[in-house]
Amino acid sequence: MFYIAPMQQIFSYNKLFGFVHDVFISIGCSDSDAATATRVLLSADLRGIDSHGVARLAGYVRLWEAKRVNANPLIKIVHETPSTAVVDGDAGLGLVVAPMAMQVAIEKAKNVGTGWVSVRNSNHFGIAGYHAMMALPHDMIGIAMTNASALVAPTFSIERMLGTNPIAVAIPAGEQPPFVADFATTTAANGKLEILQRKHEAAPMGWVQDNEGNRSTDANELKKGGALLPLGSDREHGSHKGYALGSIVDIFSAVLSGASYGPWAPPFPAYVPMPMNMPGVGLGHFFGAMRIDAFRPAEEFKQHMDNWITRFRNATLANGHDKVLIPGDPEREMEAIRIADGIPIVESVTDELIIVGKRFGIVL
Amino acid sequence: MFYIAPMQQIFSYNKLFGFVHDVFISIGCSDSDAATATRVLLSADLRGIDSHGVARLAGYVRLWEAKRVNANPLIKIVHETPSTAVVDGDAGLGLVVAPMAMQVAIEKAKNVGTGWVSVRNSNHFGIAGYHAMMALPHDMIGIAMTNASALVAPTFSIERMLGTNPIAVAIPAGEQPPFVADFATTTAANGKLEILQRKHEAAPMGWVQDNEGNRSTDANELKKGGALLPLGSDREHGSHKGYALGSIVDIFSAVLSGASYGPWAPPFPAYVPMPMNMPGVGLGHFFGAMRIDAFRPAEEFKQHMDNWITRFRNATLANGHDKVLIPGDPEREMEAIRIADGIPIVESVTDELIIVGKRFGIVL
Repeated sequence: MFYIAPMQQIFSYNKLFGFVHDVFISIGCSDSDAATATRVLLSADLRGIDSHGVARLAGYVRLWEAKRVNANPLIKIVHETPSTAVVDGDAGLGLVVAPMAMQVAIEKAKNVGTGWVSVRNSNHFGIAGYHAMMALPHDMIGIAMTNASALVAPTFSIERMLGTNPIAVAIPAGEQPPFVADFATTTAANGKLEILQRKHEAAPMGWVQDNEGNRSTDANELKKGGALLPLGSDREHGSHKGYALGSIVDIFSAVLSGASYGPWAPPFPAYVPMPMNMPGVGLGHFFGAMRIDAFRPAEEFKQHMDNWITRFRNATLANGHDKVLIPGDPEREMEAIRIADGIPIVESVTDELIIVGKRFGIVL
Repeated sequence: MFYIAPMQQIFSYNKLFGFVHDVFISIGCSDSDAATATRVLLSADLRGIDSHGVARLAGYVRLWEAKRVNANPLIKIVHETPSTAVVDGDAGLGLVVAPMAMQVAIEKAKNVGTGWVSVRNSNHFGIAGYHAMMALPHDMIGIAMTNASALVAPTFSIERMLGTNPIAVAIPAGEQPPFVADFATTTAANGKLEILQRKHEAAPMGWVQDNEGNRSTDANELKKGGALLPLGSDREHGSHKGYALGSIVDIFSAVLSGASYGPWAPPFPAYVPMPMNMPGVGLGHFFGAMRIDAFRPAEEFKQHMDNWITRFRNATLANGHDKVLIPGDPEREMEAIRIADGIPIVESVTDELIIVGKRFGIVL
């Protein structure tokens, strides 16, 4: 089968910002919420995580149409201690709820060294890395995670019980750029499967299983009742560890906060019915902020992070590779390119954006 | 090649406790420290993690002989805020330093909701799970991690830069037993390779690479300059995620505290020379305790954990499997068996214990 690279069009960040912002205004967001949501959403496009950026805008609008997203949420702290809080997102866009909750964690860290916030009644929050990175200018370590609709089967099971439940950790450095890890707790994120589907290509063995639990290379397995596999792929290669990690994210995000967990997490596609007998409200997130100087002087720490990063970057290379990456390197390099040269959007996404725009009288 | 199962002898927990305790007393530990160290060490044997129990006793004694372990440490908090502390272990046994530091985290959580303690100048701390589980009776979530001597190559590298850097997370439930994850951030722990070496068996592809970075099934690769692989095994299966996780453990444990990090982490075998130009002191650990009711009422949370655990335990099975495990199930089941029936110790370990005992006039 031939694969023809999808047509794509280049948009400047500012052009996309104006468009997305107007769409969020049109569904009823305040100016300030629309700006926040746009900034979070587009951070994914800038950083090259195309599956989590404007490609999802139509999906958020459909959730709003289905009355699963409240464009004017009253986001509030429902319980707190000096170092913790539970935030209720009032069914708001996760793109708005998450930065507000992360800000609560940062304020608590200013006061008592660290802050930890579990969030319920939220929705998809874009890329976890954005929220974790909010801690960096404060000389804090930032942590962000979220549960998500169930696509992943635990080790030895064929049932989808967990989302791709990402974890992001952002750690400041001095002269060096920060360490920013942001990854799904599965072998491969769902967005990577979608790319293979568009190309009509097979998936590597170890990413998915079929509906009977057999190993499969069919990139369309999820549409046939199959499941994504936890990081590690199979028991022999540590899938029980990926399953444990995804479970920890689910519990911190949803069981601690009172959101809906495991197979009951609300689905992102608005056409998928909500699960029956949900044990909590909406999607859950979990955020942490740790002030560096609650442990040691920030300048001293950052010098050691520079040393850490430099040492790892210069680790002896394996044949056929030209550099050892530090978590966050590829995304930061992509961001520099896309700020300068614009953001390429594939035709199918542009078409969908045009339709969304038309509905509100906004021209892309 | 024939494999003859190693001869083993069964010891009662109490018998082993008395022996190990006397050895720790003989190297100069106080009564109370010897009891703590013994309890932590034997928790590994009880839980079936045989690589981290009495099999390491001779190694701890050799570290003491090499003056790398201080049997009478003055463990102290060197910096703190309401929710954080840095603890200096004064080169003590990690088996003693770690529970003391975890206790600091628990006390802070009582006061302000959570407690986070980074530890420097320590040594190998046994199994991470023991320390995380200390939080459970307080209705807290416990977290424990540690860096370790470098055996793991980052993705695209052939150099050993990270330890197997385990993470443990213990979460209380109600009627159900607690959720206890405890895993190395590598595809397979080093102890699993050692078992294969004894059996003269090959390792599954994806556990190790040779000294040029080629995939290998040789269980002896580490002795030939090869390296363990991060969870995920290779780039296509997410090894960059395992590498990021191991790095986070290293940074939280050692860069935050002022311990020695990355390739400079002190080696466990006393015959391996200490790295040159160490950027910090000793090994590092990181502990966290989060009071459940700093988020929601503990009883409510525990009911939902029971629901979570029951739902996952009853997830639809894949063919050929008879149950979906909850993290902590295998270790808890093993503990029940070994408390009742005793702990089997392989001959080579018994022989080593007898030699250690003879040195101090202690009979096994």
